[in-house]
Amino acid sequence: MTTLKNDRLLRALLRQPVDRTPIWVMRQAGRYLPEYREVRQQAGDFMSLCRNPELACEVTLQPLRRFPLDAAILFSDILTIPDAMGLGLYFETGEGPRFERPVRSAADIDALPIPDPEGKLRYVMDAVRLIRRELDGRVPLIGFAGSPWTLATYMVEGGPSKNFSRIKGLLYGQPKLLHQLLDKLSQAVANYLNAQVAAGAQALMIFDSWGGVLSTPAFQEFSLDYAARVLANLQREADGRRVPVIFFTKGGGQWLERMAAAGFDCLGIDWTLEMKDARARVGDRVALQGNLDPATLYGPPDVIRAEVARTLASYGHGPGHVFNLGHGIHPQVDPAHMLALVEAVHELSAPYHRPERPGSALD
Amino acid sequence: MTTLKNDRLLRALLRQPVDRTPIWVMRQAGRYLPEYREVRQQAGDFMSLCRNPELACEVTLQPLRRFPLDAAILFSDILTIPDAMGLGLYFETGEGPRFERPVRSAADIDALPIPDPEGKLRYVMDAVRLIRRELDGRVPLIGFAGSPWTLATYMVEGGPSKNFSRIKGLLYGQPKLLHQLLDKLSQAVANYLNAQVAAGAQALMIFDSWGGVLSTPAFQEFSLDYAARVLANLQREADGRRVPVIFFTKGGGQWLERMAAAGFDCLGIDWTLEMKDARARVGDRVALQGNLDPATLYGPPDVIRAEVARTLASYGHGPGHVFNLGHGIHPQVDPAHMLALVEAVHELSAPYHRPERPGSALD
Repeated sequence: MTTLKNDRLLRALLRQPVDRTPIWVMRQAGRYLPEYREVRQQAGDFMSLCRNPELACEVTLQPLRRFPLDAAILFSDILTIPDAMGLGLYFETGEGPRFERPVRSAADIDALPIPDPEGKLRYVMDAVRLIRRELDGRVPLIGFAGSPWTLATYMVEGGPSKNFSRIKGLLYGQPKLLHQLLDKLSQAVANYLNAQVAAGAQALMIFDSWGGVLSTPAFQEFSLDYAARVLANLQREADGRRVPVIFFTKGGGQWLERMAAAGFDCLGIDWTLEMKDARARVGDRVALQGNLDPATLYGPPDVIRAEVARTLASYGHGPGHVFNLGHGIHPQVDPAHMLALVEAVHELSAPYHRPERPGSALD
Repeated sequence: MTTLKNDRLLRALLRQPVDRTPIWVMRQAGRYLPEYREVRQQAGDFMSLCRNPELACEVTLQPLRRFPLDAAILFSDILTIPDAMGLGLYFETGEGPRFERPVRSAADIDALPIPDPEGKLRYVMDAVRLIRRELDGRVPLIGFAGSPWTLATYMVEGGPSKNFSRIKGLLYGQPKLLHQLLDKLSQAVANYLNAQVAAGAQALMIFDSWGGVLSTPAFQEFSLDYAARVLANLQREADGRRVPVIFFTKGGGQWLERMAAAGFDCLGIDWTLEMKDARARVGDRVALQGNLDPATLYGPPDVIRAEVARTLASYGHGPGHVFNLGHGIHPQVDPAHMLALVEAVHELSAPYHRPERPGSALD
């Protein structure tokens, strides 16, 4: 195995000292980059791009050629697992993902196979292996999956939903059935993430995109408990290093204490919270990733720089901060503004990692 | 003026003692009721229904005929103000509101008139007057408006938005322009709400539907400060009673302390927070309204009853709780389930309003 030349991300995720705050950006490989749009057009539809390891590798590496980022993230989709379970994933333009065969009954749930990651999902593992080889130790590679709750939501709704009436109908009307589905998904997600680690992923992120639509007890019972079950079944070491796990519930800021207690190494934070407050609530139990409003990148470079400065100051001195947006970068963003963001984090973060002196004004 | 026979809502909003927890439900006049769908069809489109005081009065009263609710809420839309400003509001089926002439430039903002509530918005005031007469003091009537930030969001985006790129582009790129728009809207909203009080509204609610998409400092500067400015300009007394004001930011649970400090009488709480935690954070500064997940009503009556019991117990003993869903009732809900909700609140809440005795197990 090649030595990892830049391990800032892995160190920060484990709250170890770093020279400056690492930065990567959700959807850093994506539509805001003209070179991505070119490859996407070449591939045809979105899933054809995901299913082609060479093209997935190419778009994963594109943002690293432009910006001095501290991590790569596998280019893929959170719905590869339900697709491999036979639900027939497809995308309608401007509409988000849909399934040809959504899950609607006990029989549907019973019939779901737990996919072999090196079988129907081999294209993902091939992409991970290829990206690791091409990265050549430059920065670590983050693998990811959707949380069991989030996968279940998409699988049961089958398409865009405003009220989540089907999945919540199940939750309040037939909770046992939902537990069966989540149990199966927890196994599938753990297998999938373990296979990504075996293929070369050096950190993992679990995206709980829809956890924020739940009440507190329902979040605990149907989202967090199953994400924690995935975590308990993960292979946590690779290349002699710990594999840190990030958990991110969009709109889940009210549950930070619970999420920190669940054992993840790092929690994603959206921009509705102040880093200072989030850090005060979780103490030294977890690292925090975030949390600039992605829309900040519509502003001019001086505004972006000021917002970066504010975010860094809000987190304050010491380890455990991974800089990121609070959600994926928007397709409309000018890549020059993304560069302004990455450079600002690099330039402005170093003072927060110098040893603290008594009377220092930085903290 | 007729005497108000049921003043539980007004008392609870001001944290005064009541015999049981009052309940009303956001969108209680709406599509889940077959008699509403009939009137709606008769009216033609949604705005024709809003613009017809007799029909608006009829649908406002419909839920009160079925359920022993403790309040009526004016049937109208939060976008009547921008419509009266000349933006041309219309609804596309399943798509939400759109404007024919969205606000896109400094000239657009300059040109916006502040509507006379008894001019272009007279249909709203006529509806308020008619509803008050028809209610005959049975329960109080709640008037409402969108917050300046929420109106601005719709006016600038012009239609459904995923990323709020236009309004946030303004916020991060041309904040002065946005302040001009919000300043104008604050005046328009205050005039509109004062006219509703003059016409007969006995409590007011400000819906900040999109405040939750902002970062904490942006929420303070662009949403809360302007809602507070509206509040400062409101007529707070009618019929010799105080007119309580409810403020509700969907997804704004992280900002409760700030909102409580802004001077509203009551804060709306969505279902992602526990009432117990919300109450602990705001203390006796404000009443709290909420917070059952609207999707609970997909469950059977025994589940609804258990969730009502849990919510009442979470708020605990004493005054200041107005029961409601954490958002509008969904169109798919069976009216029998709404009845189960209202009856459960009536039956289960009385013990929480009996004088506390030392050693009582209720609190």
